[in-house]
Amino acid sequence: MQFESLLKQVDFIKEIDKVKYIQRKTKLFNSERNENDAEHSWHLAIMAFVLAEHSNEKIDLLKVIKMLLIHDIVEIDAGDTFIYDTLKNHKNTEEESKASKRIFGILPKNQAEELIQIWEEFEKGETIDAKFAKSMDRFEPLLQNTSNNGGTWKEFNIDYEKVYKKKKEIDKGSNLIWDYAENLLNESVEKGILTKRN
Amino acid sequence: MQFESLLKQVDFIKEIDKVKYIQRKTKLFNSERNENDAEHSWHLAIMAFVLAEHSNEKIDLLKVIKMLLIHDIVEIDAGDTFIYDTLKNHKNTEEESKASKRIFGILPKNQAEELIQIWEEFEKGETIDAKFAKSMDRFEPLLQNTSNNGGTWKEFNIDYEKVYKKKKEIDKGSNLIWDYAENLLNESVEKGILTKRN
Repeated sequence: MQFESLLKQVDFIKEIDKVKYIQRKTKLFNSERNENDAEHSWHLAIMAFVLAEHSNEKIDLLKVIKMLLIHDIVEIDAGDTFIYDTLKNHKNTEEESKASKRIFGILPKNQAEELIQIWEEFEKGETIDAKFAKSMDRFEPLLQNTSNNGGTWKEFNIDYEKVYKKKKEIDKGSNLIWDYAENLLNESVEKGILTKRN
Repeated sequence: MQFESLLKQVDFIKEIDKVKYIQRKTKLFNSERNENDAEHSWHLAIMAFVLAEHSNEKIDLLKVIKMLLIHDIVEIDAGDTFIYDTLKNHKNTEEESKASKRIFGILPKNQAEELIQIWEEFEKGETIDAKFAKSMDRFEPLLQNTSNNGGTWKEFNIDYEKVYKKKKEIDKGSNLIWDYAENLLNESVEKGILTKRN
């Protein structure tokens, strides 16, 4: 029974290797090289435990880390959706939901159920844990874009108002990090790497 | 005070981006592409929570995951040492120890101390948590090499006896995973992708 579980878990471990090939739009810090989903998830997981003390409310850190480590695994089937894509809504698409069942479903039943639940909780973004996890997911690319002279904001002509709206979600996870982030956005406007609509 | 901490934490978050550029010798599954340290650490952290039930003794999962997420950060300064390198001993070199102080030292004092301690615990490999974390670090490249027709074993002429000795450490973390791993090694010999000394 335990050995049977292990075989399923090894299949899952092999399957998720594909996450390393999924390219994001954002680039590494001070870099021209795109980040992939595995690198991104690793970075967010570390950010979560380093920044946990700034959460608005007490979080279940282990759960938040699990959330961040697995949040992009569905993109193996569904692909990466750029956050400012206006044609495709990022919110819990049917495609992603199907992907979560297929990929987490490789695991033994109890684990599959746990990870599907955690992934759905993240996508909905309603609990304290999900809010904090989402704030990490919004904060990292902001740091990257400011280090890259505007990065994807410039590359895809995303204006201040659109960026502000997306980044404001950080506030739901951490008021303090949002204060810092809002400052960065204002500085970016001053520097001319982020442009306000007229 | 809290804001001062945040500034230090952001500096740390930026610094560790460099982990994404550190190439390992091992390749991704069924692939010619080298894995980098961030991808590797992400994979091990997920393996830890998926395989935790097979640990020989009860582990502190959050600590093990932190360990695995940060275990290669010192390589920003010290570089990646190939596990079968005979000229350079991998064990907690002075260079790595210095690196841990510089890099984790970017964080606020209490966090710096926590991460240096966790990293040292991993390196020593004596506690239950470190043993399980190490078993993940040994298990992933074994799965990769068997998927890559021998991978680094063939590329660098590493024989069965040497591989066996390194992989045997898995047993300290999980007897069950070691049973599976030992089988894989024997199968590899049968398939001719791993060679026994005469």
